[in-house]
Amino acid sequence: MIVLKAKLLKGDGEFAIVCPKILKQGKISAQSPVKIQAGEQSRVTFLNAIEGIVSPETIGLSSELINKLHIKEGDPVTVIQRKPPSSYDFVKKKAYGGKWDKSEVYSIINDISKGEYTDYELEMFVLTQFFKGLDTYELEYVTRAMADTGTKLNFDEPTYDKHSIGGIPGNKVSLLIVPIVAAAGLLIPKTSSRAITSPAGTADTMEVLAPVEFTKEEIEEIAPKVRGMIMWGGALDLAPVDDILIKHVKRHIGVDPPDQMMAAIIAKKLALGIDRLVIDLPTGRGAKLTTEKEAMEFGHDVVSLCRRVNIQAEAVITHGEQPLGHAVGPALEAQEALNTLMGKGSSSVLEKSAEIAGILLEMGNVAPPGKGYELAKEFVSSGKALKKFREIIEVQGGDPNVKPDDIQLGTYTGTYEAHRNGYISRIDNRIIALAAKTAGAPESKGAGIWIHAKQGDFVKPGDPVITVYSDSESKLSQALNILETYPPFSAEGSVIYRITGIRGEKQPTQVGFNDTM
Amino acid sequence: MIVLKAKLLKGDGEFAIVCPKILKQGKISAQSPVKIQAGEQSRVTFLNAIEGIVSPETIGLSSELINKLHIKEGDPVTVIQRKPPSSYDFVKKKAYGGKWDKSEVYSIINDISKGEYTDYELEMFVLTQFFKGLDTYELEYVTRAMADTGTKLNFDEPTYDKHSIGGIPGNKVSLLIVPIVAAAGLLIPKTSSRAITSPAGTADTMEVLAPVEFTKEEIEEIAPKVRGMIMWGGALDLAPVDDILIKHVKRHIGVDPPDQMMAAIIAKKLALGIDRLVIDLPTGRGAKLTTEKEAMEFGHDVVSLCRRVNIQAEAVITHGEQPLGHAVGPALEAQEALNTLMGKGSSSVLEKSAEIAGILLEMGNVAPPGKGYELAKEFVSSGKALKKFREIIEVQGGDPNVKPDDIQLGTYTGTYEAHRNGYISRIDNRIIALAAKTAGAPESKGAGIWIHAKQGDFVKPGDPVITVYSDSESKLSQALNILETYPPFSAEGSVIYRITGIRGEKQPTQVGFNDTM
Repeated sequence: MIVLKAKLLKGDGEFAIVCPKILKQGKISAQSPVKIQAGEQSRVTFLNAIEGIVSPETIGLSSELINKLHIKEGDPVTVIQRKPPSSYDFVKKKAYGGKWDKSEVYSIINDISKGEYTDYELEMFVLTQFFKGLDTYELEYVTRAMADTGTKLNFDEPTYDKHSIGGIPGNKVSLLIVPIVAAAGLLIPKTSSRAITSPAGTADTMEVLAPVEFTKEEIEEIAPKVRGMIMWGGALDLAPVDDILIKHVKRHIGVDPPDQMMAAIIAKKLALGIDRLVIDLPTGRGAKLTTEKEAMEFGHDVVSLCRRVNIQAEAVITHGEQPLGHAVGPALEAQEALNTLMGKGSSSVLEKSAEIAGILLEMGNVAPPGKGYELAKEFVSSGKALKKFREIIEVQGGDPNVKPDDIQLGTYTGTYEAHRNGYISRIDNRIIALAAKTAGAPESKGAGIWIHAKQGDFVKPGDPVITVYSDSESKLSQALNILETYPPFSAEGSVIYRITGIRGEKQPTQVGFNDTM
Repeated sequence: MIVLKAKLLKGDGEFAIVCPKILKQGKISAQSPVKIQAGEQSRVTFLNAIEGIVSPETIGLSSELINKLHIKEGDPVTVIQRKPPSSYDFVKKKAYGGKWDKSEVYSIINDISKGEYTDYELEMFVLTQFFKGLDTYELEYVTRAMADTGTKLNFDEPTYDKHSIGGIPGNKVSLLIVPIVAAAGLLIPKTSSRAITSPAGTADTMEVLAPVEFTKEEIEEIAPKVRGMIMWGGALDLAPVDDILIKHVKRHIGVDPPDQMMAAIIAKKLALGIDRLVIDLPTGRGAKLTTEKEAMEFGHDVVSLCRRVNIQAEAVITHGEQPLGHAVGPALEAQEALNTLMGKGSSSVLEKSAEIAGILLEMGNVAPPGKGYELAKEFVSSGKALKKFREIIEVQGGDPNVKPDDIQLGTYTGTYEAHRNGYISRIDNRIIALAAKTAGAPESKGAGIWIHAKQGDFVKPGDPVITVYSDSESKLSQALNILETYPPFSAEGSVIYRITGIRGEKQPTQVGFNDTM
């Protein structure tokens, strides 16, 4: 153990640097984790022991660590060699075939939220769940424990929400559902994410029209008045353990335990104080859930989890084989949503939004059973949903009179045209997402893709199929190049493989627009 | 991508520090792994981006990294953001339920040996094996691939070996088996490990009598002449992938996949060119294998793996409930081994050594089937094994005329005595090991424990039970304190729990020497 003075080292991420001399003196090793303590706060990390950077009396800490420890430069911190937290024994117990009880789960999640686990131990926790799964009880405990270790919002009335299990581009339905449900008087304070791997998260899209970052207190005050909000949930510290697992493990290993993902989603809803929820499960090739069977199982599991934590929930399986509507990318999607609320948008966007909003209206007894969908469409056709949307935009700090044409799209555009006759049978979500991201989305709000021809449409040579928008000429041409190289379309009834030549040699023809139309 | 000049930063472990300015310029992030390349060599690591340590043209590298890259200060290195190696897809395939074929396993092991995996990916590899296990084919491929990615030794004749699956203190049998087998003319170039968690590895014990570090070339030259050697295997780079996994993952997570451990053991034998092998499986409470069933399964699996890689092997289940012989700790064990070869040592050490050596003698057709044990004992009683041991000590650079009393033991001693009458029923390996390590073993060669009374012995109050040796008075008293607090003995027929007072309240009496005799 040794006491050192904190010295701020500016830089990127989390690091702690000491002079190698102090290792022996403090009986600490740079090869095993240490705990850095300052009053009530502590962090477990690995030291870098490097000569000539800090004096033997000081420890160089990144601003990230200084903030987490709630200290300022010059403050003393204690560095001790750390033993694994006792809750880590519970992780190992499950790895060896045991089960978790409630107190064990709380003890693990609590230690993780306090930063007591190394990345190695966090990965062991994630992978134990991945390989062993969680039973009904464990899933409930993990969900509750995650919700209880972060910010919790309180509303004095039933609160509504919808959630999509991501994976399809262009899913801008929240920008319609929230105004419809709020227009009916129900409270729907919707938090959403920014894009992590997709071209636009709902928060990115809404941000084209209004700010999306609010504190817990602001939301608790504003939402009940206007009845709906569309915000970024990331700054609220809702169920932060999942964010820790994403940052420290999941994005490094490329697997995400389905049970853990489910727990994280519902934990955030619990923390937000949600009572009634519709879960949208886009299903099909290229979506997160690829088969109906898989989606049915996931849906049943998530609804049953909701019941155990007192959320009334319904899951809906929706078409996930192609992007929703025509627009992909923040500005294009915001424009399409606004147009749809104005009665001149995409019918698929309107239909899906009305279906989901309708279920919420029925849950809230605003519509009789089976009549929610119709009522939702009425809220749109009457202009009430649009009016509510403009109120929401205003209360969040945007321009309530915004017109679709005011929304700024990427200045460079290029269009990919059909080379032959044919019917579009499928549009590959992954290629569309990749092209939109290559064009600059979501960082560049105006970047994205407009899909002219969708599943079932007939195209002739020269017909526009996809238009790419970008703020950069080189990104535009890169995105178009992706579409030429991996055409995201295939057409019904077309040849997929040609079997030629010697037996055993399979020559795949390219599955895509060029070859099959 | 960016090219930077290497600058040596002295310190502990592996680190790379850049100026934060270069991140944007090189399109690299400190949050994702990078590959640092220098000619043919490369390492995957995470950058620390810290202001004010290195100039924007340089990258600060630890000496460990500079050595691994085979560069010197001032040399240019290329830093690029790295994508996961394509073999990592095979790891994920197995995690999701698939199987590995031979080329996939080789591709994974090869990438790991080249340093292409991050610690996160290595942990995923280890835990996938832990949770999914390896089938017969996969186990063979992992074993062969691990052997093929390191140093390989070649001998022009059949080569013999024995291996203990660790876990019991005082297991100095290699110091007898090697001379016996070599005295019979068979070639037995035994590599062994230094203690990691135990009070003495065979290499630590042999080092009391002679140096144990040799190069591949020295071993290939010396061993065939003297017929036997007892060396440290650590410096030989045999199957180095396991060392990478231990250093980067296993010691951080506290689990070791049994299949992976088995593959690593046999891979090292393969790399060493071993043809015939006896595997010793000490079994019982306090040993690595606790039940006979477990040991039988492990034994069958390891023998069948050996057959697949063309090693003729036999596994023997041995008593693992108490330390072997009386001595624990490098100097005490070396002394006991030497005494036993001189005919005045411990009968249990002699018996076990003769049993295992006897099997090797039968494998080598030096003894007819069923007669190996007797022949082994003859080699001891005739003094031939002792003579061979002195030859081995000499050729390795030690004093061939060493007498047991020449061996220096810890200068401070203290004896734990019996408090009551009783028969010793069991000696707890873990407490003995802990006390010996607390006394200073294996770093302090003279530190250790001498067990006077073993299983089945009758002791009266005042009889010596354990003597502790140490080079430090305070360590001695700490070690004795452990023995007083957790007496490592229990006695047959004695009370284990006393049930007193109110129902539901269980008051455990201490299970140990004090209370039960």
